[in-house]
Amino acid sequence: MSYDVEAIRADFPILAREVNGKPLVYLDNGASAQKPQVVIDAITQAYAQEYSNVHRGLHYLSNLATEKYEGTRGTIARFLGAADEDEIISTSGTTEAINMVAYSWAMPRMEAGDEIILTVAEHHANIVPWHFLRERQGVNLVWVDVDSNGDLDPQAVIDAMGPRTKLVALSHMSNVLGTVFDVKSVVDAAHARDIAVLVDGSQAAVHLPVNVDEIGADFYAITGHKLYGPSGSGAIHIKRARMEEMRPFMGGGDMIREVSREVITWNDPPMKFEAGTPGIVQQIGLGVALEYMMGVGMENIAAHEADLATYASTLLHGLNWLNVQGNSKNKGAIFSFTMPGAAHAHDISTVLDKKGIAVRAGHHCAQPLMEHMGVNATARASFGMYNTRAEVDALIEALELCHELFG
Amino acid sequence: MSYDVEAIRADFPILAREVNGKPLVYLDNGASAQKPQVVIDAITQAYAQEYSNVHRGLHYLSNLATEKYEGTRGTIARFLGAADEDEIISTSGTTEAINMVAYSWAMPRMEAGDEIILTVAEHHANIVPWHFLRERQGVNLVWVDVDSNGDLDPQAVIDAMGPRTKLVALSHMSNVLGTVFDVKSVVDAAHARDIAVLVDGSQAAVHLPVNVDEIGADFYAITGHKLYGPSGSGAIHIKRARMEEMRPFMGGGDMIREVSREVITWNDPPMKFEAGTPGIVQQIGLGVALEYMMGVGMENIAAHEADLATYASTLLHGLNWLNVQGNSKNKGAIFSFTMPGAAHAHDISTVLDKKGIAVRAGHHCAQPLMEHMGVNATARASFGMYNTRAEVDALIEALELCHELFG
Repeated sequence: MSYDVEAIRADFPILAREVNGKPLVYLDNGASAQKPQVVIDAITQAYAQEYSNVHRGLHYLSNLATEKYEGTRGTIARFLGAADEDEIISTSGTTEAINMVAYSWAMPRMEAGDEIILTVAEHHANIVPWHFLRERQGVNLVWVDVDSNGDLDPQAVIDAMGPRTKLVALSHMSNVLGTVFDVKSVVDAAHARDIAVLVDGSQAAVHLPVNVDEIGADFYAITGHKLYGPSGSGAIHIKRARMEEMRPFMGGGDMIREVSREVITWNDPPMKFEAGTPGIVQQIGLGVALEYMMGVGMENIAAHEADLATYASTLLHGLNWLNVQGNSKNKGAIFSFTMPGAAHAHDISTVLDKKGIAVRAGHHCAQPLMEHMGVNATARASFGMYNTRAEVDALIEALELCHELFG
Repeated sequence: MSYDVEAIRADFPILAREVNGKPLVYLDNGASAQKPQVVIDAITQAYAQEYSNVHRGLHYLSNLATEKYEGTRGTIARFLGAADEDEIISTSGTTEAINMVAYSWAMPRMEAGDEIILTVAEHHANIVPWHFLRERQGVNLVWVDVDSNGDLDPQAVIDAMGPRTKLVALSHMSNVLGTVFDVKSVVDAAHARDIAVLVDGSQAAVHLPVNVDEIGADFYAITGHKLYGPSGSGAIHIKRARMEEMRPFMGGGDMIREVSREVITWNDPPMKFEAGTPGIVQQIGLGVALEYMMGVGMENIAAHEADLATYASTLLHGLNWLNVQGNSKNKGAIFSFTMPGAAHAHDISTVLDKKGIAVRAGHHCAQPLMEHMGVNATARASFGMYNTRAEVDALIEALELCHELFG
């Protein structure tokens, strides 16, 4: 494998810094990823030389900014394997994307007693918008568990589908356990029953080659800040047939065709769902980030991270005082762990931080999964394209120190 | 006056560039403003040295990013004259802010036959969310006209208030005409009748000292990209009593206290209304932009722009073949104009662009106002803190060329 991780690391300026006097070991990629210099440069270039509002001007800078901004839609489509770039809607991230689906598609078509199937491993972004429908219009949430390995049996999801099921909303990859779910089987079964499927691709698109046309989900959301792109960037792929069913989410500029005192008509999708001045420079930066990832190659990134996952898994499971949550065979390089009877997750994070190692401690916006696993919080080490085996070693060494201190 | 406009210009790198072989004369500030180097540097610094997700980590970078991000809330409060920084909610801009109010405050409390008062001069961002309530739940929109000078008589708004009026939503400054509306009189009269008031401060906050506590509106929205800050940044000031009445808008991370399969509880405001990973770096950049403006001084900016407005007004009104829309005494440096019987607004923009002058042509997201004025489109020159009298001269010269070509 010609994966030159040191060359990749050199592209990310923050990785050269120290934290608490130690070289930064950034293992909090599940929360947000760092940015390569090309993304930072693209942002600088946009603001210092090429900035204007988009869609609205006829002057040079407006046309230039519009071209760059709109070009991102094609890049996102290519990254996601979407043949039709007009099925891509720009968002500020997965949270806005899923709320859009909840407000625009689900809210006007779901009645009391209708059902939404969720897995217990969902991120709050893919839970709370559906709780709104429960609270506000009596929709029932139907939960499917993961097993003790953190695996989701697609048959369990299929078995939960009933005559009132209108939607299955599930993650493609758990942000806590790293498990990759077989969303394709769920989509096929759901579509055979006229049930729509929303896939939260926030983690999967970072770590795996994703092809939304092959998966066939009605809705597939990604978030830019986890994809080595700017904060406040993102997109959702929505099948044209579902877009046609959606009423607008937010109202404002660009999404209208005509506004009068009495009536209003809408722009064509995807513009119909992009209200107001968009995150112009963030989306341009996201396009550059995705080009960067595609330049390295998603297969190569996935292979590199698989190697890290195997290496880390062996070493972490070798620590018999460490409880590692989830041990699926279909698992990416995201590890949650606790030290039962010894250090709290927050203590682990604090000790690791002293060694320059950034991991996250808490419920990871996945409280139902925490409850299912019988823990309040875990520490989580989540790897990215720039992490190394040496950083796994550093993690293990720091955990051993933690065990000495608290064990 | 010690306003050193050349020093300010030197702070904005894009102003040194040429367009079509001519020095850029950027008069499209009403659509979006350019960014000073300190803002660009803050973004670079954040991504290259200090980036992490916020609120969620316990590690060094997360604490650092959280501190910087949360510090922005205080800066925005200071900029807006809000004594209580917890009345500031971060948004991606005015569009999201007003939609939040529509979905979270208005939707659950307005019934068929209830009324919302709007002025005809509103931007679509302050029209379309209310049309949603008309379409979806039978709320009536009550329109108040501006006069031929572009002035809004506050008494006309007050006269429109009736027993079913629940909200007045109006701009503080017209994005088309530059007229500053007397929102304080409207707020006082509305509150005497238990009517809430939303003020769209997208333009006013750029050009005038604003004090939301003095104005007393229930909701006051600003948008960062017009305030010399990053795209995708913004905020809304909401009085605590109104926040208490609001249900959440978007669901996701950070806005919850606890999530289980069956129930959900909310975080305290303002977090209750900030779902998911926010626009971390955009908000940090917005804070720096507001500090920059406050460093120059809003009174000084307003005085400089008042000088430009007077100078431009005299010269523009001297062109007897040019129809300048609106001539209020309470008018900022935003000018809309047409060449009746000669050039279309888009032709004007195109000719000006050849001279390096960026103005916008179209309906400026204000179609009801266009209809009221009896035009389809105008060309608009909108000035900012870095514009000069020499740029007004350049505009006049280019308009004369346009008159020669099309007149």
